[in-house]
Amino acid sequence: MDKDPCEQAMKLLGDFWTLRIINALKDKEVRFCELQRELNNINPVTLTKRLKVLEDANLVDRTGQSVDKISVTYKLTELGGDALGVVRALNRFSQKAQAVN
Amino acid sequence: MDKDPCEQAMKLLGDFWTLRIINALKDKEVRFCELQRELNNINPVTLTKRLKVLEDANLVDRTGQSVDKISVTYKLTELGGDALGVVRALNRFSQKAQAVN
Repeated sequence: MDKDPCEQAMKLLGDFWTLRIINALKDKEVRFCELQRELNNINPVTLTKRLKVLEDANLVDRTGQSVDKISVTYKLTELGGDALGVVRALNRFSQKAQAVN
Repeated sequence: MDKDPCEQAMKLLGDFWTLRIINALKDKEVRFCELQRELNNINPVTLTKRLKVLEDANLVDRTGQSVDKISVTYKLTELGGDALGVVRALNRFSQKAQAVN
């Protein structure tokens, strides 16, 4: 079966950390170490990898020099903002599911 | 880290087939064999398993006798309808992602 758009989106967003990272970048520009703290001290290697995937998929913009990790900041692109729609839909569904089950 | 609502929803919905099944049941009541056809002849064991998970999670209602598979039909519950919001958000994101990338 060919991949449908929904599945492709799930493949990108359905990772354990990805939606958390997107949510943590909502409405703000965040430094790597702040992001790490906000994500309960996620392993920095994992965070670097996930941010790279999100950068490559045009969901996250990185600014600053990677040689100086302290000054590097991350923010959502317009498309990253669109991914927040998925976070919101999941949260809404989840709240209703908790009320029912 | 405790599971957040978003993650719980992803765990339930993030399966390869689950969102497809939910989408196939949109606005209609469908027999098992029709559902199987609509899902490109999904393995019936897989379909049975996924429907059972969705029934247990109150997303799908089954009517009819399971001894007579032909007359068994499936439809979305109200909560199943809410899960369509996630399908829609994923499709919307996916369309935008295709336009950007």
